[in-house]
Amino acid sequence: VSLTVAVFIATSLDGFIARPDGRIDWLEAANATVPPGEDCGYAAFMASVDCLVMGRNTFEQVLQFAEWPYGDRRVIVLSSRPVSLPAPLRPTVSVSAETPAQLCRRLGAEGLRNIYVDGGKTIQGFLAAGLIDRMTITTLPILLGSGRPLFGALPADLKLTLLTSRSFPFGFVQSTYRLQAGDALPC
Amino acid sequence: VSLTVAVFIATSLDGFIARPDGRIDWLEAANATVPPGEDCGYAAFMASVDCLVMGRNTFEQVLQFAEWPYGDRRVIVLSSRPVSLPAPLRPTVSVSAETPAQLCRRLGAEGLRNIYVDGGKTIQGFLAAGLIDRMTITTLPILLGSGRPLFGALPADLKLTLLTSRSFPFGFVQSTYRLQAGDALPC
Repeated sequence: VSLTVAVFIATSLDGFIARPDGRIDWLEAANATVPPGEDCGYAAFMASVDCLVMGRNTFEQVLQFAEWPYGDRRVIVLSSRPVSLPAPLRPTVSVSAETPAQLCRRLGAEGLRNIYVDGGKTIQGFLAAGLIDRMTITTLPILLGSGRPLFGALPADLKLTLLTSRSFPFGFVQSTYRLQAGDALPC
Repeated sequence: VSLTVAVFIATSLDGFIARPDGRIDWLEAANATVPPGEDCGYAAFMASVDCLVMGRNTFEQVLQFAEWPYGDRRVIVLSSRPVSLPAPLRPTVSVSAETPAQLCRRLGAEGLRNIYVDGGKTIQGFLAAGLIDRMTITTLPILLGSGRPLFGALPADLKLTLLTSRSFPFGFVQSTYRLQAGDALPC
C-alpha cells in the first residue's frame, strides 16, 4: 500500500499553464471548443483522487471562480504564509507549510492512496523532490510566447515512461507518463 | 504556388532541444532505444524538402558529426557574422544574413516549394515573424530541467491546428500542427 502522486494539467504547446499575469483566457477559449460531454478524462481522474494538493497561487485563483469546484473533496493548500479560508471551505480545506516529502509521508501514513498535485510551483517542487508518480499532460494547440511555466529546474534528468497518448478532434493531445522506477523517492 | 516552411524537431517534455551547453546526449540516448528501421518519419519528411535553413549554432554542431548528414541537399546557414565553410560543402551550403521574411521571399521567387527550418533560435525567429506553416514536434519522455528552449517570445498568440498525432512504443509522441490561416504572413 503506497501513495500515488499524480498531476493532471493542461499546457500550451510552449509549456505555459497561465499568462505572465496568471490569466487563463486562452485555456477557457480552448475549452469552449470542446464538445459537451467531453471532459478529456477529468471526472474519471478526479473520482480516483483522495486529496488535492495545491499552492496558494492556485488556491487564490480557484477562489475567484463562480463556484468552488471541488465539492466535498479534501484539499490541502501548501503555503509558508497564513492563508485565509472562507468559512464554507473550512470543513474540507486545510493549509500546510510542510515540504512535499513531509506531506506525502503524513498522507501515506493516514492511509491515503491517490493525491492530485496542482499548480505550477507546487508541481515543480514535487517533481524536484522526485515525488510525482504519474503525469497526465494535455497539450493545447497554441503558442503563448510567455507565461507561467509548467516545468522548472530539476536536480537531475527525470526519465519518464509513456503510458498512453491520445489526441482529440479539437486538437488537444493528452499523454500520461509514469516516472521511472528508481527516480521517485519512496513516499 | 507558394513556399511551405516546416519544422521537424525533437524536444524534451519540458521543451528543451539541447542542454544549456548544447549537448544532446539525452537525445542520442533516446534515439538508441528506437528499433532499427524506425525513423519517426524523418526520411519521408526530408524527401519533401528542397532546402534546409539553419542558424550558425546548429550548423557548427552538425559540423561536429562524423559525417555531413545532408548529402547534396541545399542548406542555407543564417548568420549575421561570416561563417567558414569547409571546401567540400561549398557546392551545397551557402550563408545568408537575410531576415526570415527576406529569405522566404527569395526562395519562393526561385520556385522552391518546401523548406525545413532547424535550430532553436532560427525556429523562434521564423515563428515570431509568422512564417512557419507546419511543425512536427516529437516529444521525448524525459524532463531535463534546463537547456536551450525550442520556443521563445512571440509578438502575439499563435493558434495551431493539430493535423496528426501518434505515439511510439518507445515513448515518443509526435504531433504535427498547421499554423492557422491568417496567422502566417504570405511568404
